[in-house]
Amino acid sequence: MFREKIKVLDCTIRDGGLINNHDFDHRFVKAVYRALSEAKIDYMEIGYKNSKKMFSPKEFGIWKFCDDEDIKRVMDGIDSQLKISVMCDVDRVDMDDIKPRKESPVTMIRTACYVKDVDKAIYMTNQFADKGYETSVNIMSIAGVLDNELTECFEQLEKECKAQVVYIVDSNGSLYQETTEFLIKKAKGIIKSKEIGIHAHNNQQLAFSNTIEAIIHDANFVDGTVYGLGRAAGNCPLELLLGFLKNPKYDIRPVLDLISKEFIPLREKIEWGYIIPYAITGILDLHPRAAMALRKGDQKENYREFYESLIGGDEE
Amino acid sequence: MFREKIKVLDCTIRDGGLINNHDFDHRFVKAVYRALSEAKIDYMEIGYKNSKKMFSPKEFGIWKFCDDEDIKRVMDGIDSQLKISVMCDVDRVDMDDIKPRKESPVTMIRTACYVKDVDKAIYMTNQFADKGYETSVNIMSIAGVLDNELTECFEQLEKECKAQVVYIVDSNGSLYQETTEFLIKKAKGIIKSKEIGIHAHNNQQLAFSNTIEAIIHDANFVDGTVYGLGRAAGNCPLELLLGFLKNPKYDIRPVLDLISKEFIPLREKIEWGYIIPYAITGILDLHPRAAMALRKGDQKENYREFYESLIGGDEE
Repeated sequence: MFREKIKVLDCTIRDGGLINNHDFDHRFVKAVYRALSEAKIDYMEIGYKNSKKMFSPKEFGIWKFCDDEDIKRVMDGIDSQLKISVMCDVDRVDMDDIKPRKESPVTMIRTACYVKDVDKAIYMTNQFADKGYETSVNIMSIAGVLDNELTECFEQLEKECKAQVVYIVDSNGSLYQETTEFLIKKAKGIIKSKEIGIHAHNNQQLAFSNTIEAIIHDANFVDGTVYGLGRAAGNCPLELLLGFLKNPKYDIRPVLDLISKEFIPLREKIEWGYIIPYAITGILDLHPRAAMALRKGDQKENYREFYESLIGGDEE
Repeated sequence: MFREKIKVLDCTIRDGGLINNHDFDHRFVKAVYRALSEAKIDYMEIGYKNSKKMFSPKEFGIWKFCDDEDIKRVMDGIDSQLKISVMCDVDRVDMDDIKPRKESPVTMIRTACYVKDVDKAIYMTNQFADKGYETSVNIMSIAGVLDNELTECFEQLEKECKAQVVYIVDSNGSLYQETTEFLIKKAKGIIKSKEIGIHAHNNQQLAFSNTIEAIIHDANFVDGTVYGLGRAAGNCPLELLLGFLKNPKYDIRPVLDLISKEFIPLREKIEWGYIIPYAITGILDLHPRAAMALRKGDQKENYREFYESLIGGDEE
């Protein structure tokens, strides 16, 4: 009954890092690595591979840079089949930092880009592939892209890119299941030589259902995060995904323990999840940055004013 | 673009009453009534019409009984098109309490029942209809019903029942969009003379997406609650529904205000929403009562033990 090709990628530490400057301590990251290993998750994305020439290690935690030594320290002493993934943004990587796959604890490199930057993403991704890594290109903010541009982007990825996977990324949490169906079918119709993936945000409590919708239409790479941790409204909760998937290798129990012991206390310290300003930006298909700014101020529960500020004042 | 036939029924006070013994004070209920009126919601379900011979008014709040005088007090002084609905359970109503529609502030009576009790529900519903009310039959816990029994139930409702609407109720929050599609299509295939409705619970963060799925397949009555308030994991958030529906008469802003001013403070006092034990009962298609009991004790974050207690020990 289950589809063996479906791979689960947990990006708790990577996407969660966007709300704490990538500053998770080693004990916490190791607890996540252990639980994901026991749960038989396929990939763990541990952070970004950003250039230290562009971002200061004094201002950001270590998971913005993902030095091999830090990754190895997490893996050390834990018997695991879990593959490590890191994310690269266009224009923020020092390509010399990327060692050959054989010398690195990393298995997969995912390149995130907007449609307009797909040429750069292909250029980078092909280099990662040539160094021996599994690779993907993750197309961000896909809901607001014109259809002809998306067609060209997908055609280019199919023809020119060595990535094994192309991801649909709902950065704003604005997709409904009909839009998800449309995008996945469109991608599958053009991109025949690669798998399709989905990375959903939870602004409208639709991250899980959009992930299911993508699976229904043959996406085989699905992202989740423990207890939905992630920027703003967060992501598709890994525990729900494990409750849904029928592959008997997955075990939800280590993830339940991890939430009990680590994520309930963490939620007292940092905020993510279903919060009305994030729902509003999702409904309006806007990046959550205005909502994130609102939540840091003393007007954080002034929803009507926030909504008015986003819809008002536009002129042709 | 919008479908005018879609009607939104807010059951915040009725379903929310299940977590506070129906003991919302008049000021709060009036604030909800005013906001829903301004938002141009179609129906507000205000509580249950239970018999005072069976339940003591000393033990329960007034919205377990919904006396006409209490309803009129809420409506008093507010200009509104909002129709009032009350819910009746099988075997818990004193039929003599139900006055003719002309003498009552209530427009709609919804009868909730399990498939096995559909004969009783039809008997009651036809009496409500004869008294002049709009009526529905709400089939609870529909996920676990054998197909032949469901067919018979739907056929009987179509032939014998005067209700205008038959609701699919996902009591356990266990439906996925494929199951929702199956059930709505099945209901539409048999029940030709009535509308189909959906009442979804949010254990797996799927209440909103299942409601969208039902709309896609031509359900025209959809339930929501403000900020998802409701028993255990709660319901489809009304604010998300209003963000999705395209009917220009709906206005999300009064609902945003209501959440800011009333529901954020309320959430500090009573618990509902996405909480792991409710997710677990949803995944396992079980009633949330075990999870609700767990949340009242000192083991409330012991998710693994709770999960094991639900899956272990079964024998053929």
